[in-house]
Amino acid sequence: MDTFFTIRWNDGSVQMLDQRYLPLEESYQSYSNYHEVSQAIRDMVIRGAPAIGAAAGFGMALAAFNSTASTTEELINDLQRAAETLKASRPTAVNISWAVKRILREVNKLTFQGVLAIKDVVLRTAIDIADEDVAVNRQIGLVGAALVPNNANIIHHCNTGSLATVGYGTALGVIRCAHECGKNIHVFVDETRPRLQGARLTSWELNKLGIPHTVIVDGASGYIMHTNKIDLCLVGCDRIAANGDVANKIGTYNLALVAYAHQVPFYSVGPISTLDLSTKTGDSIPIEARSELEVTHVGVQQITPDGVKVANPAFDITPAKYITGIVTEKGIAMPPYEDSLSQLVKTKGD
Amino acid sequence: MDTFFTIRWNDGSVQMLDQRYLPLEESYQSYSNYHEVSQAIRDMVIRGAPAIGAAAGFGMALAAFNSTASTTEELINDLQRAAETLKASRPTAVNISWAVKRILREVNKLTFQGVLAIKDVVLRTAIDIADEDVAVNRQIGLVGAALVPNNANIIHHCNTGSLATVGYGTALGVIRCAHECGKNIHVFVDETRPRLQGARLTSWELNKLGIPHTVIVDGASGYIMHTNKIDLCLVGCDRIAANGDVANKIGTYNLALVAYAHQVPFYSVGPISTLDLSTKTGDSIPIEARSELEVTHVGVQQITPDGVKVANPAFDITPAKYITGIVTEKGIAMPPYEDSLSQLVKTKGD
Repeated sequence: MDTFFTIRWNDGSVQMLDQRYLPLEESYQSYSNYHEVSQAIRDMVIRGAPAIGAAAGFGMALAAFNSTASTTEELINDLQRAAETLKASRPTAVNISWAVKRILREVNKLTFQGVLAIKDVVLRTAIDIADEDVAVNRQIGLVGAALVPNNANIIHHCNTGSLATVGYGTALGVIRCAHECGKNIHVFVDETRPRLQGARLTSWELNKLGIPHTVIVDGASGYIMHTNKIDLCLVGCDRIAANGDVANKIGTYNLALVAYAHQVPFYSVGPISTLDLSTKTGDSIPIEARSELEVTHVGVQQITPDGVKVANPAFDITPAKYITGIVTEKGIAMPPYEDSLSQLVKTKGD
Repeated sequence: MDTFFTIRWNDGSVQMLDQRYLPLEESYQSYSNYHEVSQAIRDMVIRGAPAIGAAAGFGMALAAFNSTASTTEELINDLQRAAETLKASRPTAVNISWAVKRILREVNKLTFQGVLAIKDVVLRTAIDIADEDVAVNRQIGLVGAALVPNNANIIHHCNTGSLATVGYGTALGVIRCAHECGKNIHVFVDETRPRLQGARLTSWELNKLGIPHTVIVDGASGYIMHTNKIDLCLVGCDRIAANGDVANKIGTYNLALVAYAHQVPFYSVGPISTLDLSTKTGDSIPIEARSELEVTHVGVQQITPDGVKVANPAFDITPAKYITGIVTEKGIAMPPYEDSLSQLVKTKGD
């Protein structure tokens, strides 16, 4: 389907496309234990909520694969240690802990089985998580494409494509599906400082897909909405709270406020696994602070004076009030989200 | 006052601090004709509405200085050619044409005088424009400092300091004056993509002034307003229309919308020379589109895939509705701006 892959299991190791060097260099890394996978997630070799969920799953698979435990109890201890390490890699997206919990749930069903059976179910579940992600994204694309009119002008933030998932993408999957359905569309791509996932990754993916697009700096979205007819904004999500507040890449909230002022529909797009009903509102979602270097330097280029103080929150919270709808594989939740989101979770197919 | 200078006349040449290399390198360029000055303005060796106004004035002075005209008529022709070249350097800020017009007005008073007298008045007026800018900015600082409470947290966009003016600054002059008055303040500095004037220049100036500050990416202002008590936003302006719409660096409009949603006061700050009553609304202000390279590269670092399409508007328009007040050396205009701005122009001291 794609001419590249984001992450895959390869017989005792996990391979990932190293997204830090895109679009200038397409190189793959191979990891043979969960510590390396955790570090790769921290270092953003791989990023995007669904993709790091899958990476955490494969991290658990490596922990099982490498475990020298001779008893079920020892193996479960090894897996729990790996789970804690992987969950600590990045705090905001709920998908890591969702994947780890799903694997441990499968393991717990087998506590009277032997070590080999447990190792087997961990790997099988990790592969299921990855495979299902692609299928779920295709379904999200179909659901969301209905929102995209022909000749649509779309603003998109960050990267939510194949690179942010195991394949196909979430918000970019919606764009891709609309394109594959023959709709004529154009995407304004927020460059998405500080790590420039829009400029680097989304434009790279849209190039490969042949979807017309124009890169803009994040601060230009208001001007673009004032001077162009923008039909909708499509963004991903790292965690959806029970009330519909959404954590996503820094700059999403600003875009939502700008869209609101221009009465441009604003949709968050993600799998149901991104929904965290145990988090009541966005204010309870931990926001990761990342290295000052992401702001003070771009690649090898230093920008700021030496020693300048930087605040670098990796995510922000968009209050439900500014979100027109939340697109999932099970349908589109509309306000009031307390009702519609809990309803979606109960929908058949989970 | 400052340990550097932005622009100065030096006996037949114009010297400028080359802002493209700040904060990593503090180097000065010297220009000996108006074509070079025009190119320096285009290349953003010098930038900031008041500073390029002063640069245009000195460009006219060089045109006069270098003219080989033997008659008044020939000299005026030379000056008019220079005026057209300088005005075409950058279209959005009104200050270039304001400075050029002021000089030509002085020249027109002397058409019965000889060539030397005219050459003299051109240089004298150019020097007056530069000197007055510093005095005007100090006055703006005093007027605006009243808006800054003790312990204020301020968000600032782009660069509006000594580097954007001949000295002292406009919005940054307000911040500086509040600091010099002994107020305890902290500034969140929007990095201001694509040319990063905030990260590069504003942080450099605030460092020199000893004013506490924190650099953020432009997309983080909403998150910062949600998580910190922000007292006000202070930005500069490149052109103020009669109805109070303001053209300023791209990203200003987004910041204004974000401030509006958080009920944070938002002030545009600039000299009366930035007011263009002949422009009725912001929609009539020409918006300069700059090179795609500003977005595709940061310094030597390439960001985007080869050949990507970029939209790079250098400015945006903030509608009057989102502006709490416009701070000038003659006082603070408040809505409705049609009345208050034309009133300010008539105020004694122009």
